[in-house]
Amino acid sequence: MAHVNENYLKLPGNYLFADIAKKVARFSEAHAEAEIIRLGIGDVTRPLAPAIVAAMHKAVDEMGQAATFRGYGPEQGYEFLRRAIIKGDYESRNVSLQADEVFVSDGAKTDVACIQEIFGNDLTFAVADPVYPVYLDSNVMAGHTGDYNAAKKQYDRVVYLPCTAENGFKAQPPKEKTDIVYLCNPSNPTGTAMSRRELTDWVQAAKENKFIIIYDSAYETYITEADVPHSIFEIPGAEEVAIELRSYSKCAGFTGTRCAYVVVPHACKAYTADGRAVALNPLWYRRQCTFFNGTPYVVQRAAEAYYSPEGRAQCLADVAYYMENAHIIRDGLQNAGFTVYGATNSPYAWVQTPNGMKSWDFFDLLLTKAHVVTTPGEGFGPHGEGYLRLTAFGTRENTIRAIARIADLKLFR
Amino acid sequence: MAHVNENYLKLPGNYLFADIAKKVARFSEAHAEAEIIRLGIGDVTRPLAPAIVAAMHKAVDEMGQAATFRGYGPEQGYEFLRRAIIKGDYESRNVSLQADEVFVSDGAKTDVACIQEIFGNDLTFAVADPVYPVYLDSNVMAGHTGDYNAAKKQYDRVVYLPCTAENGFKAQPPKEKTDIVYLCNPSNPTGTAMSRRELTDWVQAAKENKFIIIYDSAYETYITEADVPHSIFEIPGAEEVAIELRSYSKCAGFTGTRCAYVVVPHACKAYTADGRAVALNPLWYRRQCTFFNGTPYVVQRAAEAYYSPEGRAQCLADVAYYMENAHIIRDGLQNAGFTVYGATNSPYAWVQTPNGMKSWDFFDLLLTKAHVVTTPGEGFGPHGEGYLRLTAFGTRENTIRAIARIADLKLFR
Repeated sequence: MAHVNENYLKLPGNYLFADIAKKVARFSEAHAEAEIIRLGIGDVTRPLAPAIVAAMHKAVDEMGQAATFRGYGPEQGYEFLRRAIIKGDYESRNVSLQADEVFVSDGAKTDVACIQEIFGNDLTFAVADPVYPVYLDSNVMAGHTGDYNAAKKQYDRVVYLPCTAENGFKAQPPKEKTDIVYLCNPSNPTGTAMSRRELTDWVQAAKENKFIIIYDSAYETYITEADVPHSIFEIPGAEEVAIELRSYSKCAGFTGTRCAYVVVPHACKAYTADGRAVALNPLWYRRQCTFFNGTPYVVQRAAEAYYSPEGRAQCLADVAYYMENAHIIRDGLQNAGFTVYGATNSPYAWVQTPNGMKSWDFFDLLLTKAHVVTTPGEGFGPHGEGYLRLTAFGTRENTIRAIARIADLKLFR
Repeated sequence: MAHVNENYLKLPGNYLFADIAKKVARFSEAHAEAEIIRLGIGDVTRPLAPAIVAAMHKAVDEMGQAATFRGYGPEQGYEFLRRAIIKGDYESRNVSLQADEVFVSDGAKTDVACIQEIFGNDLTFAVADPVYPVYLDSNVMAGHTGDYNAAKKQYDRVVYLPCTAENGFKAQPPKEKTDIVYLCNPSNPTGTAMSRRELTDWVQAAKENKFIIIYDSAYETYITEADVPHSIFEIPGAEEVAIELRSYSKCAGFTGTRCAYVVVPHACKAYTADGRAVALNPLWYRRQCTFFNGTPYVVQRAAEAYYSPEGRAQCLADVAYYMENAHIIRDGLQNAGFTVYGATNSPYAWVQTPNGMKSWDFFDLLLTKAHVVTTPGEGFGPHGEGYLRLTAFGTRENTIRAIARIADLKLFR
């Protein structure tokens, strides 16, 4: 008699974005005339860059000819892409990597959800609060947590690192025994970014307390301040304690094209129960070779084109477009009286609700009065209460209109 | 202190195809003049069909325009593809499915390796012997087995179902307590296929003994005999006890394009420890929503084109080409005195070694004397000893030359 994985049953039945979608649908049905603007989900709207489109057409043609057809590729990605990654994302920042330290994948969500599989089942992990839900849910489903405590809105046996206005929304290294820590920098959802100094403290703490940092830098292209590292491997010694995840979703508009990569340095090690150090790189290699059969050839050529001079320039222009949106959101809401965080090194603005309003109540108010969809901070964890996340990935026109509508509510008069 | 997943350390260090690659490289270096023909790995060589290439170009263009650009798609795949699957692969065989029973993915290897995650950790599973290694390795890595027994070449706590000449290389339902059974039909590596009667017995056994069948039908397009079902859901009641996996790798040449799907019927259930029945469909949905972010839009349009009249005709012509290769292998080797199985409903021929030779010895002989690369049956499990797998995915010319070279060795004179 087959048993189900009962860890799945610990997950609360409601999903943040499904709940939002339902509320929006319900409002929309009742108010067909309302023109709704969506600044909720972090999905891009600019089309793929011309250099990327051209590379994909070329690759599609290759796949249509026997002489240039490609069957199974290497599970860890073609060397042409891994070399382009090292040159474009790391050597340009004085970080040297070997090709077999890079693993190309179909998306950062897959990578970040699956990376826990190479660790022992007795895993204790830490996440920021508020946090991107996948870090947490993947570990719940793998059995690395206790039950969900509905009153606390937290799982037992998880180390939560509160991110509040007091600490600048920056997670502090855990004091409790912790095996791995998920760090997103610049952070989703708060849009704040840790400096070189702060990240150096994290690497130091990881060495001292022997935890591994799972470093999600999906938003690194949005960094504008010189003091914020683009890779954790810019911090000396990080290669011994960190795994880095990158994605083409936000830097090149690949949310529907699907490509990402993981860097697992040879120097990064964990331990057997009897204390023997084991390199994580061959474990992830083995995981990928058994559970994955490579990223589509056409998509790998698309990602490679991101590193061409034209591709990079075109993609950076899109990033600049989104960042201009971010500034419109930040400045517009600040001028209207709001307290706004993020939106400087990130496409996300983290907006304090007016007069201590609950985040779902403010979500409802903006939906019904301004016809603007946002994401309630409480959906990312209890310390997100009192905030909303707004994303800069809309069109310029919609972003301007949405902010004008919110300002027109005159909530601070 | 982070612990590693020590289950990974149970895996023997040598991988079948890596071992083969090393042997071939060593021979090749020493004999630069030898023109090696590869009939080892099951990778296709025909280019993508023109209808599929056209659909991909169109989709790439859509991704390059703001008005038609697609960001995140549904994790379970676009409805246009799921509807095409149901119409093209199921309704055509009088099987009705609902759209939310189909989950589009990036490959059958991913699906077949990950499906065990929705089951409890106390899982007992059965595999054929010989078998496609991923069924086994994914469960080893998830901790569902005991240690590797080097003498037996088997893992403890796994139910092996011997497939031998005596039972026509057809796995028989397990007598031991088993929770899930992996069945590949037509089988990789033996190339044999179970009939409707035999599959009906399996479904009956699954109902009686409450196990779930993970049914891998990656090779269904190669079926030529009317008596062999293309889907396990052609068997009445199978929807209560089976999950089916399909792939575009072999039917449409997608080994480098990456698309597959899983069918988890609403009626298929497993149990909590205290005996409550739980539908598996929502568990797999939740798994996919947390661990996966959808298949590339361009690839889903490629898969959809497989179901167009032109796409299907073009792909079936390629399948016919490979099957002609299979018959050349089968008939050529039989004429040379070999005993050959498979290659009737499958692109794989399962060839008995001459005079009881060990499969690695015969592999070496064919490599060094005929310059033909094959796969030793023993690499798929102890009951594969005494056999080689040859694949029909080469070019016509190479297939003819390889078989002529093997026949010329006159091993049966």
